[in-house]
Amino acid sequence: MSFDRLQKRINELKNPTVVGLDPALDNIPPEILNKHIEDKGETLAAAAGAVYEFNTGLIDAIYDIVPAIKAQSAFYELLGPEGVIALKMTFDYAKSKGIYVINDAKRNDIGPTAIAYSGAYLGTVKIGEKELHPFDVDAMTLNAYLGTDGIMPFIADAIKYDKAMFVLVKTSNPSSGELQDRFLASRRENHRESALVTGGGDASGVLEDSENEAIQLENDPKDSQTLYSTVADLMEEISKDTIGDYGFTRVGAVVGATYPEEMKFLRSRLKNTFFLVPGYGAQGGSAADAALAFQDNGQGAIVNSSRGIIAAWKQNDQEFKNAARTEALRMKDELSAMLF
Amino acid sequence: MSFDRLQKRINELKNPTVVGLDPALDNIPPEILNKHIEDKGETLAAAAGAVYEFNTGLIDAIYDIVPAIKAQSAFYELLGPEGVIALKMTFDYAKSKGIYVINDAKRNDIGPTAIAYSGAYLGTVKIGEKELHPFDVDAMTLNAYLGTDGIMPFIADAIKYDKAMFVLVKTSNPSSGELQDRFLASRRENHRESALVTGGGDASGVLEDSENEAIQLENDPKDSQTLYSTVADLMEEISKDTIGDYGFTRVGAVVGATYPEEMKFLRSRLKNTFFLVPGYGAQGGSAADAALAFQDNGQGAIVNSSRGIIAAWKQNDQEFKNAARTEALRMKDELSAMLF
Repeated sequence: MSFDRLQKRINELKNPTVVGLDPALDNIPPEILNKHIEDKGETLAAAAGAVYEFNTGLIDAIYDIVPAIKAQSAFYELLGPEGVIALKMTFDYAKSKGIYVINDAKRNDIGPTAIAYSGAYLGTVKIGEKELHPFDVDAMTLNAYLGTDGIMPFIADAIKYDKAMFVLVKTSNPSSGELQDRFLASRRENHRESALVTGGGDASGVLEDSENEAIQLENDPKDSQTLYSTVADLMEEISKDTIGDYGFTRVGAVVGATYPEEMKFLRSRLKNTFFLVPGYGAQGGSAADAALAFQDNGQGAIVNSSRGIIAAWKQNDQEFKNAARTEALRMKDELSAMLF
Repeated sequence: MSFDRLQKRINELKNPTVVGLDPALDNIPPEILNKHIEDKGETLAAAAGAVYEFNTGLIDAIYDIVPAIKAQSAFYELLGPEGVIALKMTFDYAKSKGIYVINDAKRNDIGPTAIAYSGAYLGTVKIGEKELHPFDVDAMTLNAYLGTDGIMPFIADAIKYDKAMFVLVKTSNPSSGELQDRFLASRRENHRESALVTGGGDASGVLEDSENEAIQLENDPKDSQTLYSTVADLMEEISKDTIGDYGFTRVGAVVGATYPEEMKFLRSRLKNTFFLVPGYGAQGGSAADAALAFQDNGQGAIVNSSRGIIAAWKQNDQEFKNAARTEALRMKDELSAMLF
């Protein structure tokens, strides 16, 4: 199973790190970018060529010590269709080196459109009689604001093609609390207040319908809880039939290292959820913060570093591949000292 | 201003319709798809070629009667990088015909990555000394689960390049209520319960910090309100300095026609927000439901139809361009009868 493969490789390498290939152009050594600009002018194609050369260099430098890469789709889309070609080529190259590949795309949509997004990244599209895998990554990130019918198509493809996903739960950014940390009224309270606000009989009908359609949590908590923990519970619930050998469902959670209290709370609450942890390093999360994402047995999470590794050449005056490898080894030592 | 241009064109054409170019392959007439497969085999490139031919035919058929098109990014990403090329070419062709162009991409990310997404679709990327516009659409859709620091970069580019955006508020799908309809505890309540749940002194410190970082609503409601209306309020608040001649900020809202009670509530609450309305037609929303999205003066919203128009050829046995135009005129008449 997808997360079994990931956890097994993490254990083999004793390294729960994912390298974030987020190639903002100022993270690429100028000599690489300039070479492509000389060749193709100041064009999107030149920048995309530089990104691909940079990425393959980084992958060569770390594939034997790091289990996974995560590409942030935004930095590729920023280079237009040429950037998306570089994204796909990067996925293909990483897979050829045996690396677990995550597309950090945070996609979200309603049923039929969610099917299309899932087909693009986890599943297939049928053209004539042929089933093609457009991007074919091991896992991708999703946003669950639209509810479970936007997530179910990804679970179906994950089961069919042995893939996985990470749903945004508690993100690492400063304003993540504006919505995610808000406490929700309990469902009974919800019902009463809805009738008050929308004015009576009509509204209770609407509410009953939408409650019938909604997924019911098995242990519907009587007490109020936050939006982020409600999302987390909902995701563990809808994926509970997908648990693999290491005890994880196919629906992981994104939980930022920058919020250690919330991390502790979620790790103790979610027994079967694999965590993807951004926010370590440049964003301010420490190794001790990130370590809170792991179960007592040292499993169940992977910690991302992007700029810290791929732009290490800016800090330590080495050639970019050596710099990335040095920093990846330092991060591995720092994390594994706390876990293994 | 971006929404001024859109509203002006809607008024000129007396047609508040946006045609959703969501080219699932089974919405494309088989003779078009087969021609491209004969030419390029059963490949992503063949499908992308068929999509582009289909789209240009649709645009030719409706550009003089419909003010805007909206492309659902998922159906293009499903065809890999070749599909993204077809997406960009579709935007370029529509703009050449004077149509307002919306990318329905529902992007969402944290600060620096949100800047990259915004650069891709609304703004620019700098390569060498050149500023390039990778996709350059008039507006795009966004998801605000990550909070306002993920939205601010788009507002900055919208001001700089005269663009706009629509943030998901209340979506049209069956499970949209699972999270969006939940009532939030008031902020005071929130604080008290947070201390209870995470266990005292430590937690209040965390909460105070996150409250300092959070945007404060001007009229912080004392009473509990739903997640979707909280998102809506937050978006109107952070965009209040961007109001154009017609009274709308640059941050619109996506509100589904399938939830008329919620639509009425939001229309009366949000004085300066332009609505993008999915859910009319195939998803079950009626013209009367969609009409609730408009202000008393008949302005402030645009209603999407995708399958209903682009796949009209399946229903009425006409050639696809004629079928699309016939249905677009029927929808225009139905909506404008209620508004103008």
